[in-house]
Amino acid sequence: MTNPTAAMLVIGDEILSGRTRDANMHHLANELTGRGIRLIEARVVSDDHDAIVAAVNALRGRADHVFTSGGIGPTHDDITADAIAAAFGVPIGVRDDAHEVLKAHYQRTGLELNAARLRMARIPEGATLIDNPISAAPGFSLGNVHVMAGVPAIFQAMLAGVLPTLTGGDPLLSQMLDVDRGEGEIAAPLAALAARFPDLDFGSYPYQRNGAYGTQLVVRGTDAGRMDAALVELAKLVRAE
Amino acid sequence: MTNPTAAMLVIGDEILSGRTRDANMHHLANELTGRGIRLIEARVVSDDHDAIVAAVNALRGRADHVFTSGGIGPTHDDITADAIAAAFGVPIGVRDDAHEVLKAHYQRTGLELNAARLRMARIPEGATLIDNPISAAPGFSLGNVHVMAGVPAIFQAMLAGVLPTLTGGDPLLSQMLDVDRGEGEIAAPLAALAARFPDLDFGSYPYQRNGAYGTQLVVRGTDAGRMDAALVELAKLVRAE
Repeated sequence: MTNPTAAMLVIGDEILSGRTRDANMHHLANELTGRGIRLIEARVVSDDHDAIVAAVNALRGRADHVFTSGGIGPTHDDITADAIAAAFGVPIGVRDDAHEVLKAHYQRTGLELNAARLRMARIPEGATLIDNPISAAPGFSLGNVHVMAGVPAIFQAMLAGVLPTLTGGDPLLSQMLDVDRGEGEIAAPLAALAARFPDLDFGSYPYQRNGAYGTQLVVRGTDAGRMDAALVELAKLVRAE
Repeated sequence: MTNPTAAMLVIGDEILSGRTRDANMHHLANELTGRGIRLIEARVVSDDHDAIVAAVNALRGRADHVFTSGGIGPTHDDITADAIAAAFGVPIGVRDDAHEVLKAHYQRTGLELNAARLRMARIPEGATLIDNPISAAPGFSLGNVHVMAGVPAIFQAMLAGVLPTLTGGDPLLSQMLDVDRGEGEIAAPLAALAARFPDLDFGSYPYQRNGAYGTQLVVRGTDAGRMDAALVELAKLVRAE
């Protein structure tokens, strides 16, 4: 398939220590699938400069778009912006447009725009700001890398701003069929069917409901006609077994 | 810190398409932290041979242990065992011990041990089996890579069998302190405190509860005395601001 591709980089010790269960990857996966963009890889790294730089550089060469979450707040462990600048080899400093956004926000809320908060206006040269309708501090896009907050509500709001600017692909369709038998029973005919439809992806996922075992068969692709043809065959296969 | 390190590789199109929300990474993170093993990176890749091989080889060189989830069932998209064998450059085939385990299971359940199911007895040369008390089909450990099922109940059962065989480290302690102020207010004194305790990790995580903003401060480390000292300072800092 020729759909655009994406990768995700989750940044944060709190995910790897088990303190926090990441929610952004699953949200991103669904949003991308809905726009015909294929998420091909995701990584989670700690708040470590070198780890972030290495992962960003690996992923931005491999996917059409990279989405990062986490590490853009005001504290000492928020080092994502500097790591992205280093990955691209561009300078970083407090930028006027981001500074104005923060000034307006803190005037409105009556809180002080202190030195720590001003760090959130540090934006790599050449980046475009991503609007943060919740807590003002912006994300940014640099090249094909979109840098967003880790707090799920803010991540989602930023993503909603970025996605309409990206070129999507043919919708990634999926169809499911539940079978009340184990995977092992239908594995052989399913493999044969998958070989006849190399343009589609066939998945099978075992489940247990009310003590009964079964398998959910999933077909994914972009051509509705081919999907329909595959489903007719799949239904036959399930009945025949 | 000199604690052992670990990495995780989640394998499966269903995670990247958004069909399934991964639960194993969060479980593993908590289990490892409890045993003093630091999870330093996690990756999610699709059911793609080359992607699995590349990720396994990158991670097994970087961490003391690698845990994989997914892709060890009976269907055509279950390719993890072959990819692991390729990553290590060792042969793979149906192995007698794994075959016996499956034979006994399918005799007990009255189901047929067909060719597809027999694929689950394909184990790379030199690997040690990991017991699967739920559905019999074993995982395996090869070198420092532990290959387990993606179904959470089975992943957890397999992990419970593997963890006691690994050397843990000093317990990774964590302490939390909630402050009813934004991160930006305490960022500077927190950074100064973190600089004075370079052997500990300091994290700060904004939250919103009942409409009020606050920050959860987290200190992580292995030396209980140093943790106590840092917490005394942290409490002072929070009162002083």
